[in-house]
Formats: sequence, structure tokens, C-alpha cells
Amino acid sequence: MHKNAVRASLAVLGLSVAFAAQAQLSPEDMVKFRQSGYTFMSWNMGKIKAQAVDGSVPYNKDQVAAAANAIAAIANSGMGALYGPSTLDVTGWKETRLKPNFFDEQDKVKEVATNFVKQATKLQEVAATGDQKAVAAQFGELGKACKACHDSFRAEE
Amino acid sequence: MHKNAVRASLAVLGLSVAFAAQAQLSPEDMVKFRQSGYTFMSWNMGKIKAQAVDGSVPYNKDQVAAAANAIAAIANSGMGALYGPSTLDVTGWKETRLKPNFFDEQDKVKEVATNFVKQATKLQEVAATGDQKAVAAQFGELGKACKACHDSFRAEE
Repeated sequence: MHKNAVRASLAVLGLSVAFAAQAQLSPEDMVKFRQSGYTFMSWNMGKIKAQAVDGSVPYNKDQVAAAANAIAAIANSGMGALYGPSTLDVTGWKETRLKPNFFDEQDKVKEVATNFVKQATKLQEVAATGDQKAVAAQFGELGKACKACHDSFRAEE
Repeated sequence: MHKNAVRASLAVLGLSVAFAAQAQLSPEDMVKFRQSGYTFMSWNMGKIKAQAVDGSVPYNKDQVAAAANAIAAIANSGMGALYGPSTLDVTGWKETRLKPNFFDEQDKVKEVATNFVKQATKLQEVAATGDQKAVAAQFGELGKACKACHDSFRAEE
């Protein structure tokens, strides 16, 4: 049942099992790669927050746009391929916090994943304009999209 | 001396100490963020290698372009801000392999960093065309740019 759910999940995220993006990765590498993607996005979220939201650092349009580009490109890179039941309870850089219900709630996964990619792509578009207030607003929307997944599918530390 | 060298290095990479991108990060977080960036790029290099170079997985233009976008956006995100003498011998996800001569050989750092960003950006442009042979050739150029930095500034494991 989990395997079928994963197939459905991967299909939703634009990947199929038959045409995987590369040769089979170990579960440990899958977890390490996805943890790396989220961690690198968090660095870039921190830069945008400091410059566009908190104002603790002077707003630099080019730095904010570059940070938003990184987030959007990572979000659009097909990270769905890094999820599978074999990665539950696995240690990449650290133990994964992915909850097993990820593989049982495919409609919800589709909803949060689609919205995450949409909001990240929109932040990239808004950041390119250099409009600080619009960036701050869209940063909030992306933060909500991140939180929606965490609330449903990430275990507390 | 190291501090001045770092200022020079950051300036070269498009960042200044006076206008840091965000509030001061701990050395551990700086190492963790840069290790995450390189690790996520390596996942995407692996996909491009499998599809465009080895042919072990069918070539998918959209997947290869998305992978190249992620690499280019990460390369252009200002990772120079994640380097400083305080990060030597520090453990992020794992102990950093950065060699101390990074802070003494600024001309070489400038050369390899500039070429890395240039080749990553070019791979993104080539991948957008969908020309598999051109992607394979440019993948090789980017690999050489990665290796140039590893050879000079990364310790053996």
C-alpha cells in the first residue's frame, strides 16, 4: 500500500517511478539531499526576512532576488523524488522528521506541495521587481506554505 | 591578516562586511549552510550526469533544466558570505574540509569562484535549449570548475 501511495505521490510531483531522474539513491542519501535543500532554502529565507521583513539589514534588491531565485529553483527541482517509505526513520545529516502519514494522505501532500512550489515561484517573481513591501507580503505567504507541510507531516523535535 | 583577506574575499564575491546579507550567523551555521548548498548541487549534478552524460536514465529536458536552474541559483546566491576564518575546523553537518590557505590565496579564490559561477550560469543557459550534447559538454566544464576549487582549497577525506 505504501508503494502505491508513493507512486501516486511521485506522479503528483511530476516524477514517475518508471522514469526516475537518476539511478536509485540510498534512503540515507535521499534524506541527506532533501535536508540539504530545505536547509539551504532556510538560509535564503533568513536573508529575505532580515532585509525585507525585519529591516535588520539594509534592503538589497539583488541579494533578495538572488535568495528568492535559489528558493524557487530548489522548490522546482523535483524534490518529490527524494520521498519514499524507505526513508522513514532514516538518518541523513540527522534523523528525518518525516511522519508516516505523508504516505497515507496523498490529497493533502498534493495540496501542500503544489502550493509550496506556487508560492516560492511567486516570491521569485515579486523579488525581481524590487518592491520591498510586496516581497515582505509574499514572504509571509511562502512561510504559511512551509508551515502547512510542517504541521501535517513533520514531527516535533 | 586573515580578517583583511576575508574582507577582500567577500568583496570579490559581491558581498561586503559592512552590508552583510543578514545578521551574524554562527560559524557552525555558516558551515552547515554551505555544506547544504554543495550537497544539493551534487544531487542535481548527479541527475544531469545520469541523463545527459551517461545516458543511464532517459534524457528529460525539463528535469535537466530544473536541475541546472537549481545549481545556477545556488551558485549565484552569494555563498561567499558563508566563508570566514572562524569557520575553519568547524563542524556543520560534518567537519569542514576547507583548507586555511583559502584565506591567504585571494587571487586564486577569486579566479575559481568567478569561473564556478560563470560555468554554472552557462549550464543553466545550455540546459534551457534542451541540446543534450551541449549539456554534456558544459557539464564537463562545470565539473572542472568544481574540481579546481576542491584541488586548491578542500582537504582530502
